[in-house]
Amino acid sequence: MTRYLCAPDSFKESLTAIEAAQAMARGIKKADPEAEVRCLPMADGGEGTTRALVDATSGVMRSVTVHDPLGRPITASFGMLGDGTTAVVETAAASGLGLLKSGERDPLITSSYGTGELIRAALDAGAQRILIGLGGSATNDAGAGILQALGAKLLNSLGEELASGGAALAGLDHVDLDGLDPRLAEVEIVAACDVTNPLTGPNGASAVFGPQKGASATDVELLDKSLTRFAIVVERQLEVHIADQPGAGAAGGIGAALLAFLHARFMPGVDLVIEQAGLDAAAQWADVVFTGEGSIDFQTKFGKTPAGVAKTAKKYGRPVIAVAGHIGRGIDELHEAGIDAVFGIAPGAASLENLLEHAADNVTFTTEQIVRTLNLSA
Amino acid sequence: MTRYLCAPDSFKESLTAIEAAQAMARGIKKADPEAEVRCLPMADGGEGTTRALVDATSGVMRSVTVHDPLGRPITASFGMLGDGTTAVVETAAASGLGLLKSGERDPLITSSYGTGELIRAALDAGAQRILIGLGGSATNDAGAGILQALGAKLLNSLGEELASGGAALAGLDHVDLDGLDPRLAEVEIVAACDVTNPLTGPNGASAVFGPQKGASATDVELLDKSLTRFAIVVERQLEVHIADQPGAGAAGGIGAALLAFLHARFMPGVDLVIEQAGLDAAAQWADVVFTGEGSIDFQTKFGKTPAGVAKTAKKYGRPVIAVAGHIGRGIDELHEAGIDAVFGIAPGAASLENLLEHAADNVTFTTEQIVRTLNLSA
Repeated sequence: MTRYLCAPDSFKESLTAIEAAQAMARGIKKADPEAEVRCLPMADGGEGTTRALVDATSGVMRSVTVHDPLGRPITASFGMLGDGTTAVVETAAASGLGLLKSGERDPLITSSYGTGELIRAALDAGAQRILIGLGGSATNDAGAGILQALGAKLLNSLGEELASGGAALAGLDHVDLDGLDPRLAEVEIVAACDVTNPLTGPNGASAVFGPQKGASATDVELLDKSLTRFAIVVERQLEVHIADQPGAGAAGGIGAALLAFLHARFMPGVDLVIEQAGLDAAAQWADVVFTGEGSIDFQTKFGKTPAGVAKTAKKYGRPVIAVAGHIGRGIDELHEAGIDAVFGIAPGAASLENLLEHAADNVTFTTEQIVRTLNLSA
Repeated sequence: MTRYLCAPDSFKESLTAIEAAQAMARGIKKADPEAEVRCLPMADGGEGTTRALVDATSGVMRSVTVHDPLGRPITASFGMLGDGTTAVVETAAASGLGLLKSGERDPLITSSYGTGELIRAALDAGAQRILIGLGGSATNDAGAGILQALGAKLLNSLGEELASGGAALAGLDHVDLDGLDPRLAEVEIVAACDVTNPLTGPNGASAVFGPQKGASATDVELLDKSLTRFAIVVERQLEVHIADQPGAGAAGGIGAALLAFLHARFMPGVDLVIEQAGLDAAAQWADVVFTGEGSIDFQTKFGKTPAGVAKTAKKYGRPVIAVAGHIGRGIDELHEAGIDAVFGIAPGAASLENLLEHAADNVTFTTEQIVRTLNLSA
């Protein structure tokens, strides 16, 4: 009786990670009705991470009303995992670029306040540990909004509160932490972060990520000065040198706020998910590991789910097979990274729309054929 | 050291059978450089059969000037196989529907004369055995043209030669065989034929295949009467009852002429190719058999190459894996027919043109992944 672990990422625009895993499981069962199958939905810290970890641990999604990057009320979700004490918050959920129309993008004024509200809601729900997925943010405010939502006050030299957004940080004089939620001192904060950009300078948040959030060249210059000001204040108040720390520039500088004020530990996203989902034990249990993602190519080895799953599975010498909606170049490099074989699921000439619509069936079919092939030489 | 046999059909509009086999071989070698690989291009008696058998046996293609279905000179080819004594002629080569523009289709007058010329050329080249692939013909002349090209005379009651084409057969009085090429008595003729239609009647050549060759309802009626006349004459002269024989209606009644005058043996196309190419011994030699075709679905089990290859391979218990450009419905039925697994080669959303252009690389990639998978459990 063969044990199969299905640990795919989501297939973007078509299947959540759990749906992809279950589609694989159906294919395995069809080829080998005696098989033991476990589904462990995965993610890489990006979009879909909360959903995958909630599904992997039988947790729940919680919806709360928070404020979007422009201060408008929206409903956003965070996850409470199956252990009842770990919450997962994605910056994209309340502070994401996807929440704005393209004309609304303006990192001078967008705020990460909503993400702070989600963190507060997680604390209210009893979280002892909060995992924060950094990425996809519409903000460039060094996490100022998060701090404000959690009770801190960002003040100018007249003792007045700053306006929202990155530009206002140019006037920062000090941060009043008296009102900061005391529960933060008791919780562990872990950030899923795959970038190593510093907060400021030519590789900093403003210069590298500002333009895609709507910043003009002049805006970038202004924002970089604002974040530099933030770093100076932080260094003076907390004696923490934040400007050059790798990852401080993640999510428009939210990385810096998490590092300096919330004492966050940073981990590559996929490693965090692997740890939290318990992939290690599952891979050890399995005889064969399936993974996959909507699109796979040589870049997959840089922190994407299939590469992370392969690395873990190879600790135990497990075969790893990936299926994907789209196969790009450089798959040889993935073989070297421990993905033994990679199969596309497209049954022939087809539009993207058609493939997205039939992704589940195509995953099931392809997985069935792979298991049939594995069993040939068994 | 694993032995792999690559025995695919052609991938229509993109790869000949040998090209498909070689693309598979490259993928096998990439995954397993120590592998022993044999390429045996296959076909099912239809388009590409001559090419596949020539390639499978290291034979040669021979070009000759013959007459097309409307009597115009064209260059057409037949194959001399590696044994130097077996020729392969496809009716489509000189008498095929593909040689006519759609407005030219007219089975009242189209003639199989060119196919007779190819048979004569094969005799001239020293053939002791002629394999004839029936199918794709533009004719409905009961093989009258073939007989004429080989020296027989089809005469009316005044002793005048009939005009070309199916309609003229209505005036047939007798066939003068005095001039028939005497070498025909010495050669073995084997026809690759997958249809069992009789010459005449509601399931006959005219009724079933006439319309796709350009026959109107009135034409069909006229042609059926003409072929009935042909059958009556044959029966009277040769004491052979041809009208109801299964396969007599193949290729516009060419089947009837081959049966009655050339003493042809009929075989399903894929079986003929399998026999001629020596698949049996090759499958026995191999540890794993690859096959494939441009498109695979449940219909593949009805006399298509992958099903025939599987049947032969399963005599020796060999695993059979098929790759295809397009995967249709009902693949379960192919598993029951001995094809253990079926993989598509499309790497994602793509137009047919794109897939046709990159078919070889996609076959190679997919085969490599399959061999990597097979070797996982080795």
